[in-house]
Amino acid sequence: MITVLRIGHRPQRDKRITTHVCLVARAFGADAVIVDTPDSTLKETVEDVVKEWGGDFSITFQPWKRVLKSWKGKIVHLTMYGLPIEDKIAEIRENDPILVVVGAEKVPPQLYEAADFNISITSQPHSEVAALAVFLDRCFQGAQLRKDFGGSLKIVPSERKKLFRDIANQNRKAKII
Amino acid sequence: MITVLRIGHRPQRDKRITTHVCLVARAFGADAVIVDTPDSTLKETVEDVVKEWGGDFSITFQPWKRVLKSWKGKIVHLTMYGLPIEDKIAEIRENDPILVVVGAEKVPPQLYEAADFNISITSQPHSEVAALAVFLDRCFQGAQLRKDFGGSLKIVPSERKKLFRDIANQNRKAKII
Repeated sequence: MITVLRIGHRPQRDKRITTHVCLVARAFGADAVIVDTPDSTLKETVEDVVKEWGGDFSITFQPWKRVLKSWKGKIVHLTMYGLPIEDKIAEIRENDPILVVVGAEKVPPQLYEAADFNISITSQPHSEVAALAVFLDRCFQGAQLRKDFGGSLKIVPSERKKLFRDIANQNRKAKII
Repeated sequence: MITVLRIGHRPQRDKRITTHVCLVARAFGADAVIVDTPDSTLKETVEDVVKEWGGDFSITFQPWKRVLKSWKGKIVHLTMYGLPIEDKIAEIRENDPILVVVGAEKVPPQLYEAADFNISITSQPHSEVAALAVFLDRCFQGAQLRKDFGGSLKIVPSERKKLFRDIANQNRKAKII
């Protein structure tokens, strides 16, 4: 069980980045995301994806301090200041459940203290979306790439076309470009 | 040599996502990014990172059709409709140079035709930032995670602190939280 906690979300400014964080969490095999600031548009976007594309993924909203305090399991904080993922991933993988925390630009110092693992995905500045994706990809050792989400919408991988099946709406069965 | 081409960039709406695309390209080992719409703020942000953190990474602006037309090498388009990365990465890795194309929400059909490889990183909707990071991570087989960029700013990986060295400014030598 992996839950992702997104902290420092500002609904106006971070709308798209936090949406990407949530969709990456789902697509790469996490079970749930908790966002620290309520955002009904974000909730709707993510729930619409789950409804159409499948999976048991959930999105909820809760202050981050409360989440950390009540979490029963290990806490992994993704930060460019942390120890390299390749040194720690085998150890992390042995734990269940795991809370993976990704921040926005400024992260409160308490988080570094509360985390069992502060982990870097390269020691360079880039993106919490990328850090989360690579962390989950390595955590699951690629197994999630072929995960069947059992959704109504399903892509049929193709060399040069956009093909998908839509069980709920047969008219959208195959869209060919 | 890997160059990333970001298409469909709208300076206002995509500012932060495209910034993440550019920083991921650099941090995960690409040599350059080309963005299809001029954006001086984006250029400045990326060049400031290169100046402080190092590396030979460049950002330029050019219409995407012209880039595709003049590209001498293979073209990889990252799209959730494509063939799974794990089936194609070994074949892709043999090519040099490579142009990796990441789009925004709507991608013109010509791109699917122009690409030598349409590649998916999961067949689920998520994020071009994540797709690019995982693609580059797999392409370089993790080798870029420890790449030395030779910059003035350098992080000292730490279990619980924020430590970095700044050669240009000794006062910022170590920031401990």
